[in-house]
Amino acid sequence: MFRILAVRTKHNDELIVDAPVERLAPLLAERGTRVWVDLGHPVGETDMEIVRDVFKFHALAIEDCFEERTHPKIEEYDGYLYIITHGLTAGATADSSEIVELDAFLGENFLVTHHSAPSRSVATVLGFVERTGLPLRHSVTAVLHAILDRQADGLEAALDNIESRIDALEDAVFASPRNTHVASVLSVKRNILGLRRWTARQREVLLRLGRREFELIPAGDALLFRDVHDHLVRVNDLLEGFRDMLTSIQEAYLSAVSNRTNEIMKFLTLFTSTMMPLTVITGIYGMNFEHMPELKWWFGYPSVLIAMAVMATSILVYFRHRHWLGRPPKVDDIGQDVVNDQPDAGAR
Amino acid sequence: MFRILAVRTKHNDELIVDAPVERLAPLLAERGTRVWVDLGHPVGETDMEIVRDVFKFHALAIEDCFEERTHPKIEEYDGYLYIITHGLTAGATADSSEIVELDAFLGENFLVTHHSAPSRSVATVLGFVERTGLPLRHSVTAVLHAILDRQADGLEAALDNIESRIDALEDAVFASPRNTHVASVLSVKRNILGLRRWTARQREVLLRLGRREFELIPAGDALLFRDVHDHLVRVNDLLEGFRDMLTSIQEAYLSAVSNRTNEIMKFLTLFTSTMMPLTVITGIYGMNFEHMPELKWWFGYPSVLIAMAVMATSILVYFRHRHWLGRPPKVDDIGQDVVNDQPDAGAR
Amino acid sequence: MFRILAVRTKHNDELIVDAPVERLAPLLAERGTRVWVDLGHPVGETDMEIVRDVFKFHALAIEDCFEERTHPKIEEYDGYLYIITHGLTAGATADSSEIVELDAFLGENFLVTHHSAPSRSVATVLGFVERTGLPLRHSVTAVLHAILDRQADGLEAALDNIESRIDALEDAVFASPRNTHVASVLSVKRNILGLRRWTARQREVLLRLGRREFELIPAGDALLFRDVHDHLVRVNDLLEGFRDMLTSIQEAYLSAVSNRTNEIMKFLTLFTSTMMPLTVITGIYGMNFEHMPELKWWFGYPSVLIAMAVMATSILVYFRHRHWLGRPPKVDDIGQDVVNDQPDAGAR
Amino acid sequence: MFRILAVRTKHNDELIVDAPVERLAPLLAERGTRVWVDLGHPVGETDMEIVRDVFKFHALAIEDCFEERTHPKIEEYDGYLYIITHGLTAGATADSSEIVELDAFLGENFLVTHHSAPSRSVATVLGFVERTGLPLRHSVTAVLHAILDRQADGLEAALDNIESRIDALEDAVFASPRNTHVASVLSVKRNILGLRRWTARQREVLLRLGRREFELIPAGDALLFRDVHDHLVRVNDLLEGFRDMLTSIQEAYLSAVSNRTNEIMKFLTLFTSTMMPLTVITGIYGMNFEHMPELKWWFGYPSVLIAMAVMATSILVYFRHRHWLGRPPKVDDIGQDVVNDQPDAGAR
Amino acid sequence: MFRILAVRTKHNDELIVDAPVERLAPLLAERGTRVWVDLGHPVGETDMEIVRDVFKFHALAIEDCFEERTHPKIEEYDGYLYIITHGLTAGATADSSEIVELDAFLGENFLVTHHSAPSRSVATVLGFVERTGLPLRHSVTAVLHAILDRQADGLEAALDNIESRIDALEDAVFASPRNTHVASVLSVKRNILGLRRWTARQREVLLRLGRREFELIPAGDALLFRDVHDHLVRVNDLLEGFRDMLTSIQEAYLSAVSNRTNEIMKFLTLFTSTMMPLTVITGIYGMNFEHMPELKWWFGYPSVLIAMAVMATSILVYFRHRHWLGRPPKVDDIGQDVVNDQPDAGAR
Repeated sequence: MFRILAVRTKHNDELIVDAPVERLAPLLAERGTRVWVDLGHPVGETDMEIVRDVFKFHALAIEDCFEERTHPKIEEYDGYLYIITHGLTAGATADSSEIVELDAFLGENFLVTHHSAPSRSVATVLGFVERTGLPLRHSVTAVLHAILDRQADGLEAALDNIESRIDALEDAVFASPRNTHVASVLSVKRNILGLRRWTARQREVLLRLGRREFELIPAGDALLFRDVHDHLVRVNDLLEGFRDMLTSIQEAYLSAVSNRTNEIMKFLTLFTSTMMPLTVITGIYGMNFEHMPELKWWFGYPSVLIAMAVMATSILVYFRHRHWLGRPPKVDDIGQDVVNDQPDAGAR
Repeated sequence: MFRILAVRTKHNDELIVDAPVERLAPLLAERGTRVWVDLGHPVGETDMEIVRDVFKFHALAIEDCFEERTHPKIEEYDGYLYIITHGLTAGATADSSEIVELDAFLGENFLVTHHSAPSRSVATVLGFVERTGLPLRHSVTAVLHAILDRQADGLEAALDNIESRIDALEDAVFASPRNTHVASVLSVKRNILGLRRWTARQREVLLRLGRREFELIPAGDALLFRDVHDHLVRVNDLLEGFRDMLTSIQEAYLSAVSNRTNEIMKFLTLFTSTMMPLTVITGIYGMNFEHMPELKWWFGYPSVLIAMAVMATSILVYFRHRHWLGRPPKVDDIGQDVVNDQPDAGAR
Repeated sequence: MFRILAVRTKHNDELIVDAPVERLAPLLAERGTRVWVDLGHPVGETDMEIVRDVFKFHALAIEDCFEERTHPKIEEYDGYLYIITHGLTAGATADSSEIVELDAFLGENFLVTHHSAPSRSVATVLGFVERTGLPLRHSVTAVLHAILDRQADGLEAALDNIESRIDALEDAVFASPRNTHVASVLSVKRNILGLRRWTARQREVLLRLGRREFELIPAGDALLFRDVHDHLVRVNDLLEGFRDMLTSIQEAYLSAVSNRTNEIMKFLTLFTSTMMPLTVITGIYGMNFEHMPELKWWFGYPSVLIAMAVMATSILVYFRHRHWLGRPPKVDDIGQDVVNDQPDAGAR
Repeated sequence: MFRILAVRTKHNDELIVDAPVERLAPLLAERGTRVWVDLGHPVGETDMEIVRDVFKFHALAIEDCFEERTHPKIEEYDGYLYIITHGLTAGATADSSEIVELDAFLGENFLVTHHSAPSRSVATVLGFVERTGLPLRHSVTAVLHAILDRQADGLEAALDNIESRIDALEDAVFASPRNTHVASVLSVKRNILGLRRWTARQREVLLRLGRREFELIPAGDALLFRDVHDHLVRVNDLLEGFRDMLTSIQEAYLSAVSNRTNEIMKFLTLFTSTMMPLTVITGIYGMNFEHMPELKWWFGYPSVLIAMAVMATSILVYFRHRHWLGRPPKVDDIGQDVVNDQPDAGAR
Repeated sequence: MFRILAVRTKHNDELIVDAPVERLAPLLAERGTRVWVDLGHPVGETDMEIVRDVFKFHALAIEDCFEERTHPKIEEYDGYLYIITHGLTAGATADSSEIVELDAFLGENFLVTHHSAPSRSVATVLGFVERTGLPLRHSVTAVLHAILDRQADGLEAALDNIESRIDALEDAVFASPRNTHVASVLSVKRNILGLRRWTARQREVLLRLGRREFELIPAGDALLFRDVHDHLVRVNDLLEGFRDMLTSIQEAYLSAVSNRTNEIMKFLTLFTSTMMPLTVITGIYGMNFEHMPELKWWFGYPSVLIAMAVMATSILVYFRHRHWLGRPPKVDDIGQDVVNDQPDAGAR
């Protein structure tokens, strides 16, 4: 599947969309005419003929183009550059992002792009060229720039996704902390790491395109590539900010768990402190000494029961006074304040 | 709503404030006269006429201008630049900061600004121009710089807000640590992340304005934009400092919770260690052996009671000697020293 | 063991592979002929003769070349450069990576390389030259660049290894956290540190080669070395990303352990809270007071037993209502949700 | 209060110290004479006359000069620069550092400085000029540089303070960890943040002075300002190092608390494990079964007591064998080894 | 103590080692002769005469030279530079590193160095000059560069020390975690901080020497100083890597302690869960109800004993099934797996 677009600057800036393959060679031969050929999936016989017979690209470059390559590169051939870059697929989420390879041949008056999967950035630029002729009217390098710029912009959506995911995670950790949240944090972090690796590779290509290393790229256009490069540098910086935010959420989770342990300990201590003295008292009057006058008193038993009740109550009152008395914490309460009876705090 | 300001350098630097719309075209046609048109909210029919009929801006740029765009950009048109930047609203706090879009058309002798919400930076510069004619007397680029500079300065207030919020959080965590503090820390961190994203975008525009990329911007003024850019870089650095401070507070919270758990454990251990031996003793004399001579002694019962009291006291004395004896910690005591009986420490 | 390759540009770009040692001197003397001599392990007498008698290298450089040196360096001699760099062996894993020294003498029309262990990068480039003559056809500096480029690319495999190791560790920590995982994290981190030290040293050489410091290196080739240098800088950045990911895993382990402690505490508290009141009740009716009417009732004993059963059940029901009731956690359950009875959560 | 110093290069480098105010105008008019006027606190009528009538500075600059400004700036006026910078007061400690404003007017042959509080850097440079004439003999820019350089050097003392404070905190956390240590850590961190903010602002001024932006500053002197700028960049780097050290101390505190909790748990477990079996035994022989032959044996009671003693001892021996037996930890023991009976470790 | 070395380029590159002090002045006067004077400890009268009378250095510089200065600096005098730098002493370990001051006077054809303690770098370069004449044969700046280069290389040994110390600490924390390990971590970190401060200061001098700021330093040699500077920048980067590694070890320690607490809790819970039901049972049959038929049965007592044994066993079996049954952890077991009965895991 191929699409051929051309702008004939010597013919009143005429824009030709979807020219038949036979017109390709004449258009390329015209002075002042710029041609963009986009080869999409599936690659048919005509596509092969275009790159092999019309453009006469190097066999090695053609092989690289139609096979999958994970590492970006720029190779200079006689009269054209062969460039491999990678964009993000449209379905990039906070947890995973897939990468789609984009191959480009850049000549003085032509650009041939190839992508084995649908590419959002190419589609957007294609639509734009169809409607306005821009940026093909300007130069073929400008078309390449537009595509790479859209690729970098595609990251913004991923950033938004990650941001809203972080917000959701943050809220969830405070509402009811679970181990799966930590797993989510690590999953997003792993995705961020992948995005950083992607930007690192993409920058490699953009740096070279923006450095006036190649004569095919005019100085003014080099500056544009540099802008995209700088954009990616800043995006990288933001990804680190997200990473830090996720670390904070991970630590908030730990704090929440520690907090809960603390609550449980408090409850255990409260319970034990109330019960143990009662056990000692019953133990005392369970001893078998012959001379224990209290045992003979008729009011001994009720007195002890009352004494035990008073003792237990005193302890609870004491703990309440010390702001310890609480219900055994409901698991879902973690998000609330550590101290439940805050209103009493001022009443001491 | 529009305001037109002009300085006529060829006419003795005459400053014209709030010129009627009819005078706009003649002023623009004058050599050596600089015009600043500010279009505020609401956008009336006259405003549209100004940009469409007087300045004849490109339809696409006008559309971009009056709709909301979250991404900054600079586009070069014939004879003017179209610039989207974003400033912070006046109500930026430590927890949230909102962004107001500012669109600008920069020509050789004119500047058209548009903002759909009231913009503090524009208002300040407007007031300054009204009073002194500066910086419009200097150049229209200087006016744009002044506005962008004020936008960057607006961040300083947010920084101060964040700083005082950090101080308050720090004190609160030590006075009485609560889970809401961790939530606050994350909220401020999220805001900081937003501010960093904002500075990243803003720097994108400033870098290009400061790079002598555009002929419309004189070299001297480019340097000024560069200064604003550098300022934002340093602000970014400070935001990271704040982020680190917040992480420390988060960890201090964790320390405080661990500390409290420790105190509770100590209390539980103390209580258990005191009570358990008593239980064993009462258990011993509660056994039903026939040959237990102590049971027959008339002083057996009081002896055991005294022995139990002595034993409990000894244990408490022992713990006190080991600096363990403390009250069950009041929840509000976390901020105090871990060891309560410090004065005794030297007396051992 | 040595291999001699040459390209005779004045003789129709003739490629000579594995020339005998006698042809070496004539080839070097020819104008426009480029020679690459690779000295592998073991170093025989002929190898020594080549560097000593044919190329007449400085004795100090020869000594450095055939002994092991851990620090990279570049030394300029009369008419040639002596360079020590280091590559990674093929067996680099996530936990350990070994380094193989590569010595190179770079002259105007010759390159002599030496490595005491098999070098993947040299082997790859050798194969490439044998098949296509490239990059020797271009220049000897290009051959050196190709080797150093392959060395840097060798890191990519290590990065992939580390990445998949991190994925495995992450899964393992959530499935069943163990102390050995922390040890693994530290081991990978240590390896990453080693790789960073290696890139730091490698960059030292590449920076100097890419800086136009040496006249032997043409400006265009210097740019290539610069690219390799930039690649290593970005790799370094990624290594830091991995490091951070490992720190997250370490913290996730800590969270998992805390979580488990929390579960155990909950179980202990539940158990203690259920049993202690029963103990107090049995203690009460074990007291020896004479006037305890309940003891005489024939239904006293069963009533108490029933009361105890009711009490224990009530406590358990209460805890269940509070979402506390759980089984003592199986050690392997950590990866699951903190709250086991989640389905009931909505039924409250 | 004012001081006037001058060097007359055309008059044999004559140094004039504390010239009367009447001589100021003639000195300024002399070719080749450099004048430094320092205006200290309090600002009298004569001081005002100097800036207003002798130097004829702009009214806005004078207003800025004598009021407090927290933001540094450089403004270019006709024939002179107006500069606001800030230095640290002499009393900067690890916990707090105050800032003193320094205003400077820099002309071709004059420098006017003003500070509302005593300024160490100005005082040092003043003393130096009085004694040697340097750096005023060189140029007025050199005097400004000397002052700004001393300001930056003033940070070194603060760094030393912070360093020794960190050492003390580190030792204290290991000797006897307390919550106040965490508060101290945060306090020093906050101060470091303040210092970083200060360096960020100071660098803003120094960058511009060192950039050849102003014609008044010779290229050679610009380089000097650049050095001060670079110095501050490195100081900033060190401040981050300190920050990291403090984070480590905070974590060491958490470790110490966890350790202590661990010790307390161990003690509780030891105690409970020893006592509980005894309770069960006494419970058994406290049961009221009619057919319990042991109860009738005359040696039953002592046997049980002995059995209980043996049982308790066995458990303690077992724990000792497992390296658990320890005293309840003294609070001050945290700094020691986790395992107390280390000498025995080898004897197993 | 002084040593005088000279190379007479006009006299056939003659190398003079340990020339007597009387020959110094004539050698300095010779064209094309380069002289290096090294003044070591102790400083005798002759040494003073050399700097004062032969070289006629400025009194201030001489004073600075023979006193201790902690801050590096470069001062330009008439015809020579005075430089203070600092090297590491040979005894630098992972925990501490001491610094030795090196003063240098660099002229067009002479270098005077002074160090109050033995300096490894000076000694190495001295030895090299004695044997080969290099780098003095090249230029005096080259000698200075060689010394500063050796100073930077001295850091490599410290790095190796730190690296092996980190390895040891890592192993120790996993074998048997103790509080002293955290103290060691902080001690190494403190040393790293010191080294970073040292590199920061050293870079200050090297940056200026490498910047073509001084005419005395030829452009080619400036590049060499730049290399040393870049080396220190990379070393700084590595020091941060070490710092991070140490943080990881600190966190591993915390994990180990938490793990141990977890184990202890498990043991306590196991013990309590087994014993408490027994206590309740004995309590039940210790009650004094008249109508408790079981008490009359002759097989009541043995039945209860058997029931108790069965109950305890069942609980232990249940826990074992849940992978909880373990021995009370030996303190030295921390390094092993969290789960002891791993082999059984598959048998469930």
